[in-house]
Amino acid sequence: MSFNTFGHMFRVTTFGESHGVAIGCVVDGCPPLLPLTTEDIQHDLDRRRPGQSRFTTQRQEADAVKILSGVMAHPETGVQVTTGTPIALLIENTDQRSKDYSDIKDKFRPGHADFTYEAKYGLRDYRGGGRSSARETATRVAAGAIARKILPGVTVRGALVQMGPHKIDRDKWDFDEIARNPFFCPDKDKAAFFEDYLDGIRKKGSSIGAVIEVIAEGVPAGLGAPIYAKLDADLAAALMSINAVKGVEIGSGFGAAELSGEENADEMRMGNQGVSFLSNHAGGILGGISTGQPVVARFAVKPTSSILSPRRTVDRKGADTDIMTKGRHDPCVGIRAVPVGEAMMACVLADHFLRHRGQVGSP
Amino acid sequence: MSFNTFGHMFRVTTFGESHGVAIGCVVDGCPPLLPLTTEDIQHDLDRRRPGQSRFTTQRQEADAVKILSGVMAHPETGVQVTTGTPIALLIENTDQRSKDYSDIKDKFRPGHADFTYEAKYGLRDYRGGGRSSARETATRVAAGAIARKILPGVTVRGALVQMGPHKIDRDKWDFDEIARNPFFCPDKDKAAFFEDYLDGIRKKGSSIGAVIEVIAEGVPAGLGAPIYAKLDADLAAALMSINAVKGVEIGSGFGAAELSGEENADEMRMGNQGVSFLSNHAGGILGGISTGQPVVARFAVKPTSSILSPRRTVDRKGADTDIMTKGRHDPCVGIRAVPVGEAMMACVLADHFLRHRGQVGSP
Amino acid sequence: MSFNTFGHMFRVTTFGESHGVAIGCVVDGCPPLLPLTTEDIQHDLDRRRPGQSRFTTQRQEADAVKILSGVMAHPETGVQVTTGTPIALLIENTDQRSKDYSDIKDKFRPGHADFTYEAKYGLRDYRGGGRSSARETATRVAAGAIARKILPGVTVRGALVQMGPHKIDRDKWDFDEIARNPFFCPDKDKAAFFEDYLDGIRKKGSSIGAVIEVIAEGVPAGLGAPIYAKLDADLAAALMSINAVKGVEIGSGFGAAELSGEENADEMRMGNQGVSFLSNHAGGILGGISTGQPVVARFAVKPTSSILSPRRTVDRKGADTDIMTKGRHDPCVGIRAVPVGEAMMACVLADHFLRHRGQVGSP
Amino acid sequence: MSFNTFGHMFRVTTFGESHGVAIGCVVDGCPPLLPLTTEDIQHDLDRRRPGQSRFTTQRQEADAVKILSGVMAHPETGVQVTTGTPIALLIENTDQRSKDYSDIKDKFRPGHADFTYEAKYGLRDYRGGGRSSARETATRVAAGAIARKILPGVTVRGALVQMGPHKIDRDKWDFDEIARNPFFCPDKDKAAFFEDYLDGIRKKGSSIGAVIEVIAEGVPAGLGAPIYAKLDADLAAALMSINAVKGVEIGSGFGAAELSGEENADEMRMGNQGVSFLSNHAGGILGGISTGQPVVARFAVKPTSSILSPRRTVDRKGADTDIMTKGRHDPCVGIRAVPVGEAMMACVLADHFLRHRGQVGSP
Repeated sequence: MSFNTFGHMFRVTTFGESHGVAIGCVVDGCPPLLPLTTEDIQHDLDRRRPGQSRFTTQRQEADAVKILSGVMAHPETGVQVTTGTPIALLIENTDQRSKDYSDIKDKFRPGHADFTYEAKYGLRDYRGGGRSSARETATRVAAGAIARKILPGVTVRGALVQMGPHKIDRDKWDFDEIARNPFFCPDKDKAAFFEDYLDGIRKKGSSIGAVIEVIAEGVPAGLGAPIYAKLDADLAAALMSINAVKGVEIGSGFGAAELSGEENADEMRMGNQGVSFLSNHAGGILGGISTGQPVVARFAVKPTSSILSPRRTVDRKGADTDIMTKGRHDPCVGIRAVPVGEAMMACVLADHFLRHRGQVGSP
Repeated sequence: MSFNTFGHMFRVTTFGESHGVAIGCVVDGCPPLLPLTTEDIQHDLDRRRPGQSRFTTQRQEADAVKILSGVMAHPETGVQVTTGTPIALLIENTDQRSKDYSDIKDKFRPGHADFTYEAKYGLRDYRGGGRSSARETATRVAAGAIARKILPGVTVRGALVQMGPHKIDRDKWDFDEIARNPFFCPDKDKAAFFEDYLDGIRKKGSSIGAVIEVIAEGVPAGLGAPIYAKLDADLAAALMSINAVKGVEIGSGFGAAELSGEENADEMRMGNQGVSFLSNHAGGILGGISTGQPVVARFAVKPTSSILSPRRTVDRKGADTDIMTKGRHDPCVGIRAVPVGEAMMACVLADHFLRHRGQVGSP
Repeated sequence: MSFNTFGHMFRVTTFGESHGVAIGCVVDGCPPLLPLTTEDIQHDLDRRRPGQSRFTTQRQEADAVKILSGVMAHPETGVQVTTGTPIALLIENTDQRSKDYSDIKDKFRPGHADFTYEAKYGLRDYRGGGRSSARETATRVAAGAIARKILPGVTVRGALVQMGPHKIDRDKWDFDEIARNPFFCPDKDKAAFFEDYLDGIRKKGSSIGAVIEVIAEGVPAGLGAPIYAKLDADLAAALMSINAVKGVEIGSGFGAAELSGEENADEMRMGNQGVSFLSNHAGGILGGISTGQPVVARFAVKPTSSILSPRRTVDRKGADTDIMTKGRHDPCVGIRAVPVGEAMMACVLADHFLRHRGQVGSP
Repeated sequence: MSFNTFGHMFRVTTFGESHGVAIGCVVDGCPPLLPLTTEDIQHDLDRRRPGQSRFTTQRQEADAVKILSGVMAHPETGVQVTTGTPIALLIENTDQRSKDYSDIKDKFRPGHADFTYEAKYGLRDYRGGGRSSARETATRVAAGAIARKILPGVTVRGALVQMGPHKIDRDKWDFDEIARNPFFCPDKDKAAFFEDYLDGIRKKGSSIGAVIEVIAEGVPAGLGAPIYAKLDADLAAALMSINAVKGVEIGSGFGAAELSGEENADEMRMGNQGVSFLSNHAGGILGGISTGQPVVARFAVKPTSSILSPRRTVDRKGADTDIMTKGRHDPCVGIRAVPVGEAMMACVLADHFLRHRGQVGSP
């Protein structure tokens, strides 16, 4: 069972509610002797942190992470390294403003998990969405920072590639651009466009969906465990488990349905460094196993349903009512999903790296 | 770890290669006292069986299933029921024609798992694709037939909703139509069109992709285990693990990226039988938990790469070469993926039904 | 994989080193709506806490537990209850005295995990035993307090039944006596004897082993999941995982090897409340499933190897040397293992209670 | 969950009832390229097979194993090797004589799993004990034969070291003797004694318990995964899961309770090949991790309750009655548990070997 745990060899268990005492995670299975500091983790957390532009929730929180266990100064070098024991990470909740949420205590917000948590558990933590809040994803990003340490030579990078109906131009993709705009957008012109576009949405209290792409370069061939722990199946679960995600695709994805066998087959030729593929419709995965090409995944994020227009709903007593969500929210939650998607891919790859090494030996 | 096992409370472990002695599975965790006969399972297997039309591989195999364990005649009623112990199912391979595959023994077919299995394991069973063959999905369908028994009042049905660029018309959807054409197509006119369309593709030795939709009706609210065993995350993994699948979406899926918060939120009103939703963009799942609405998933199947046009590739020795795949293949492997998709959804729902009953009590 | 997690439906993940920032655990799978306060957990922790008599380590630590997540005031009753989400518990380390351990930094204590952690991981946290310290068991006791909440009508109680070669008299067993002496000893006279006996051992800087018995009453028939998750197999793993445990037995245990079939078979007769057994050699478990009788397990705890007599050993550089362990230690670590053993049995029973309810329905 | 599966990286799922169509198992996670033939497995099965002397059940069955999947002739060498995919093994049931068991259909045999299976599942397969029969252990032995292939340089050997109150003399232990008597007894004189002793028990229709010791030599230091997958905890679960086992101990086991810290600590000195221990009270495991010394485990097997003396019991209708078990049974089921214990230890070690290699790299 894995209610709040993901991974097998590299296992992450997360806990915490949006407005509780703290959120955090336990990372189990990390190999020993890897250098790891708080700064390594904080760096990734800061990329996801809210309140950095007017396009994300104005919740102001340092999201300062503490390492509670699993590291020590190496007895010879003095460098702080992992010990092979579980690494517990803690992020205290400091800006909670519970009063913002009192009006939704008894009403189910359409499009949120309010109704389903109540249906399942008989109650729900209404303060900021409780466990179903996107705040939980901070712990994923923290775990992802550790996962990256396990993957020598692998780079995992994500980008926002669509907002509403507006897609980025593939031929204008520039990875360096991503850090220069508040949208993680690799297309400079589109980023400029998004600024106005999203301002409009924000000002009228609405929201919009997005598509994120994550690419892992340097992944060795051979990772993945058929039949039911295929690399793509594990990626699909990992990305679909992110809040508000409604679709996942690998390589050509849904586009592959429109291709012929001739078009879709990635041909091969011997190159200087082994087999070289002439295209990457497969997104770096065949038969559930990595090919050595870049692993490419995309996921669709729905618009948040926390909007200023009143919507029809019901309350806990079973009466019809209306609701308008106040509070601080992201007009496009897909933006902050970029580092989360990276983290999930890093975690899945780290897990499969260790699993492959166990079953077959070093890849 | 779950190399060849899926599910937690309802667990399925499959084994077998396309051209080995037999394929089969062990279904563990099935509740006791459920009536179960070979015929129950064979009925579903027959829907997936190849060789039923010119649009699927001409391999002729009865796919006759045997139950090896886990059932007995009830001591009072005499009805054959499950006993709560593992149910092992066996399907012998009878039509293997290994000679068809001798020409691919040393070459990697582009778009197949040939290269990656070899990269991972140092060898591969080249006969009919070995473990990576779609033949393995017969055992999934068999397991799915048992899963259906666990879900009282739940109906799981699938349909082919797109072939190549051609999508079915939503307003012509008729579930009864599905059994009347060889495509599992719910749109009568489109089915007629597909007949000619796919004949053309088949005759020129090409292949084409497809999209399948699976709908589960009657699912109670409350199934799903956040955060990392969300119902949609488990569905995504289950469907992505099917051969040739490159994308999965729930409800509005990738379309949700283009929606505003107002459009996407499924409003609620009290109905005669509890909460009633006014739309189903969520595909029956919010926060990873079922809402009580139909659960709706779609998945994209790439075209098979076993085609008659020669493609550039390399061989096991590392030399450039060409390959043309002979043998018997499906021009559109997506067709037979319909009952497989149903089976995977049934298995996931059965698993979550038992898990929910464990953690919370009967849903 | 379950490096630092135990249980399946009721899952506990623990973390932390003896002299790190904090220790703690995440309890996942706890059903919702169970009343739970810090006091419930603290009560059990206080029974295990060191420094309460001269017979346990003089480390002085409040072991104050904080609940970080997974509970909230019920919206109607105001009573703090579980929410079905993970319950994270934190215990800060306050009395660490790291200087005590500097002399063992480079030497492997015979009988400790020093050598094996170093062999496995390439380094070890030498401060107080790091992760291998008995301090980790505090988090087990905390989790056990939650497990007890899940088991209506079940009482789990442990007792020290042997210290060195001295066994308690079965006919003098009095459960009430356990709380009246510092040994958790149910035999008043033997408790008085142990006082002198252990004082002698303590004064000469030696240590001694012990045997603990744990009994669960009120366990319904039917818990346990054959073949590889038998209730007794899971108990064996749970108890053997406690620090310093070298043996586990159920019911007559090793004594059963000396019995004939006639002697060992627990005969049955119908009683007022269903089947009544005339003896309990089985220790409440047959075929891996609970019978409805008390579940009885015993485990042997070796003497701590932290003693004042110098022992021959080697150091990290591979040179022969001697070692004498200073610091604060328990002359009989078996004493504090009593509440730990109770906690592990409670956790295993809670896990199987939920698993049974999932697979078969309420027991 | 692991109802009928054990292991994590090396996973074994077993199925089948004593008098069903067949028993078998699926071994998942075995590394590729290991030579493996039917004969390798049959060799171990033949050691466990019943009907080889008058001291085991007279059931006559060839127990011929078939490999259904997961192996192929290596394309270069032609040697049959593992492929990394699941290895399914099948043993058909041929000598079932169901009529022998008709008299126990409605009565619960004291000391058997009859009552508990019925309590759990609402019915039970009364034919030969169904799933709870020791026949299931044949599949464990088959899996163990594969596990041995994974452990280079490791020898796993078991012996019967006690029957009833009669223990073997440690100073007369001779491994070669084990194959020369029907008891797997390493003490020649005691084996001669057992012949008469067990004949007497058999002739009066009684039965007797036993203790088995299993020793693994050549295990590298570093195997085991603290805290909850300690090597000894996993061994305890594995051995306790064998039919009729009521106790497990490692190294000095329950004897450690009587030792002082001075006596119990295994001192160390540098030897020619690294660290050398001067004793092995630890049984080769400290802190849950292997030390490099022989891993030593013992387990107690209760006497079978299938005896010719009538015992008091109840029937399925809830009436008092008596029962006398006819049929063919082992006067000392502990004898055949020897190869089963070896197999379980081999499986646990193989699992931990692969897990260690995954987390840390090759041991």
